[in-house]
Amino acid sequence: MPEAYRSASSPAPASAGVTRTALRIALFGFGTVGRSVARILAESHPEGLELTHIFNRGVARKRVDWTSPSVVWSEDADAVLAADVDVIVELVGGLDPAGSWVERALEAGKSVVTANKKLIAFRGVDLERLAAARGGHLKYGAAVAGGIPVIPGLEQGLAGDRIERMEGILNGTCNFILSKMEAGQEYAPVLAEAQAKGYAEADPTEDVGGFDARAKLAILMRLALRVQIDPEEIAPRPITAITAVDFSYARDLGCTIRQIARAERREGHLAAAVGPMLVALRSPLAWSQGTENMVVASGHYGGDVVFSGRGAGGHPTAVAVVSDLLALAHGSRRVEIPSAPAHVSAEFEAPHYIRFVVKDRPGIVAAITAALAREQINIRAIVQKAGYPADALPFVVTVEPCKNSALQHALAEIRAMDCMLIEPLDLQMLE
Amino acid sequence: MPEAYRSASSPAPASAGVTRTALRIALFGFGTVGRSVARILAESHPEGLELTHIFNRGVARKRVDWTSPSVVWSEDADAVLAADVDVIVELVGGLDPAGSWVERALEAGKSVVTANKKLIAFRGVDLERLAAARGGHLKYGAAVAGGIPVIPGLEQGLAGDRIERMEGILNGTCNFILSKMEAGQEYAPVLAEAQAKGYAEADPTEDVGGFDARAKLAILMRLALRVQIDPEEIAPRPITAITAVDFSYARDLGCTIRQIARAERREGHLAAAVGPMLVALRSPLAWSQGTENMVVASGHYGGDVVFSGRGAGGHPTAVAVVSDLLALAHGSRRVEIPSAPAHVSAEFEAPHYIRFVVKDRPGIVAAITAALAREQINIRAIVQKAGYPADALPFVVTVEPCKNSALQHALAEIRAMDCMLIEPLDLQMLE
Repeated sequence: MPEAYRSASSPAPASAGVTRTALRIALFGFGTVGRSVARILAESHPEGLELTHIFNRGVARKRVDWTSPSVVWSEDADAVLAADVDVIVELVGGLDPAGSWVERALEAGKSVVTANKKLIAFRGVDLERLAAARGGHLKYGAAVAGGIPVIPGLEQGLAGDRIERMEGILNGTCNFILSKMEAGQEYAPVLAEAQAKGYAEADPTEDVGGFDARAKLAILMRLALRVQIDPEEIAPRPITAITAVDFSYARDLGCTIRQIARAERREGHLAAAVGPMLVALRSPLAWSQGTENMVVASGHYGGDVVFSGRGAGGHPTAVAVVSDLLALAHGSRRVEIPSAPAHVSAEFEAPHYIRFVVKDRPGIVAAITAALAREQINIRAIVQKAGYPADALPFVVTVEPCKNSALQHALAEIRAMDCMLIEPLDLQMLE
Repeated sequence: MPEAYRSASSPAPASAGVTRTALRIALFGFGTVGRSVARILAESHPEGLELTHIFNRGVARKRVDWTSPSVVWSEDADAVLAADVDVIVELVGGLDPAGSWVERALEAGKSVVTANKKLIAFRGVDLERLAAARGGHLKYGAAVAGGIPVIPGLEQGLAGDRIERMEGILNGTCNFILSKMEAGQEYAPVLAEAQAKGYAEADPTEDVGGFDARAKLAILMRLALRVQIDPEEIAPRPITAITAVDFSYARDLGCTIRQIARAERREGHLAAAVGPMLVALRSPLAWSQGTENMVVASGHYGGDVVFSGRGAGGHPTAVAVVSDLLALAHGSRRVEIPSAPAHVSAEFEAPHYIRFVVKDRPGIVAAITAALAREQINIRAIVQKAGYPADALPFVVTVEPCKNSALQHALAEIRAMDCMLIEPLDLQMLE
């Protein structure tokens, strides 16, 4: 392995015409992103990067004819890990076996570039420690928001600020579904379309249930809010409860609905949530359409910074991977943002949208508002649109900013009322 | 000077509890941005950074009581340059004497962090070469778009892409003026308001004439399009010709008007322009209000990436400065994006908006369209709103995408027509 690229104390490559040996790269995983990484390396042949190995299960069926003939194709992970490579690019995903491959590569002093949000969210701190101890580097710019440089933006550009709040649209599948529903379509056919287009898995739970966005939020919280959290402390809420009725009411409130991942530190208290929320139509979060991703980071000194672009897909994710490889080749260090373990709650103080579907009878509004009043929650508006049947009547109550725990207390009481046909739906309203 | 921070081959700071001496920092310039940098250092005291010197002319009147008592206040630039400091933070601006201070610091092997767009646009390549030769580093994240991490985003996050096009709103003063005019105000009172708020200088030429945005565009072109250009090859167009009439016509076309800095490489040809342009109301560029900045970079692989936020002001710019200082302290290298000298033209192929003010008589439209037809330029629409006097009648012609040179030929002919009361105004329409 060329010393110039390996050691933590290697100099930045000189601009002078010194011949350098390139960083030897092994791709683990030759799916959509892996192929795009190989494609960019083959087309742009960036200086200092050389693709030497490609590992995939059943690699024969994956083989393409446009990579360098010197590339070793292999289905033997152990052999590739033991080969003369400097960097493992891990694009297999999931905790295992990807995690153990990453660990073994770092143990051996190699560097790792990964797009694996789950691995970084759950084990990133330990893996970084391991990398530092063995002289390698771990880079994961592709793990959040694909081609949008949010991670370098936070690490390099906003390191000097104190980020107090962030909101993100971090899951392209949910954004595709919700922006199509905003335009008038129903959940089920849109999900089917997303699956047909390859935007959603056959089992969409990871995406629509909020687990994917949660992992990404945990990663961003470490860089932005400087906390190491257990992602499982955040209970994500699925987008599956959202219906056309909600988009209709949201529009009347000057809003739309997006899957939002948000986190905030206020007076030393750390809160995070992932799920569908109302966003004002005039806010940046409402701009994102289709599979776009967006992150808004709010700094104490610099104010709001917005990043947006293509959050997923082979090519955008591959751009982030190749950029990380170039950073390694150029000896670019991460700005190590100090972070500390922390616990996180769902205790935001936010206005809420609450949609009820009831069998209409006198006294329902009085009973609901009384339950809210007992928790000191102030009503902002009660909206009931015409045209719905009285035996399954949807109507909406919006409330002034209140603690989530107070709202949940009130909703526990309201839920028990016999007129409630389905579970009330409460959504944060972002302001 | 602590070796750990000085040398090009210094290791990244270890995570272990090794006591390190901090990077010693001299601020050159204690105006709005300088004070904000000192404020952030005093409040956040980021590890590894120590403010040791503050230089300003007539420094006595600048002195504040909240910096560390050990800070040396000085009005002797030579003495501060000769002092035991590791980094000069240059916030004086302009080519001289700031340029010679930067040069002397780099000559001495010190690093420099600067917010000086003019210096970097005109002399950045040479200064970077000097820094590399003497073992120091030159960082200028604050030179473009203040608190928005566009420069780290391009250097670190998009290095793996091939950026083919970029559009930016790079001057907050122009954006403030034009977004207020969009809301119905006239140029002169809005400029006066901008001056009163400190957004515009007494002589606003640098901003409204496009010179400030031009320098920033030249810097971004180096990182994004990888070309070293002479900024003076771009002839900026002032926003002063824009009137309420243009906003009214633009709105009818589904557009608004912004000062745009744009550059593109197409089929090996490099084009750049700075000036007022029409942008679609549904495009990200129309979102930016007030003094906000925005950059849209379009990559061959990753598609459009949007960055937006506060482009100016003491605190946002100071965030970029402190982030650069942290990157130096952490041994983070720039990803050296290779660039080559290039010439730039104004030869975009774009649709245009052309507004005429004429003394009405029969045959004017025929003459104008004939002149355009002789250059093979196709008319898209002719719009004439009611309510204007016939002796000073504004009307608009929009044309299909055409070469700028062809349009200028046609306009030279049209300009000579005796019915033209004022210079026709041609604006690119971004699509």
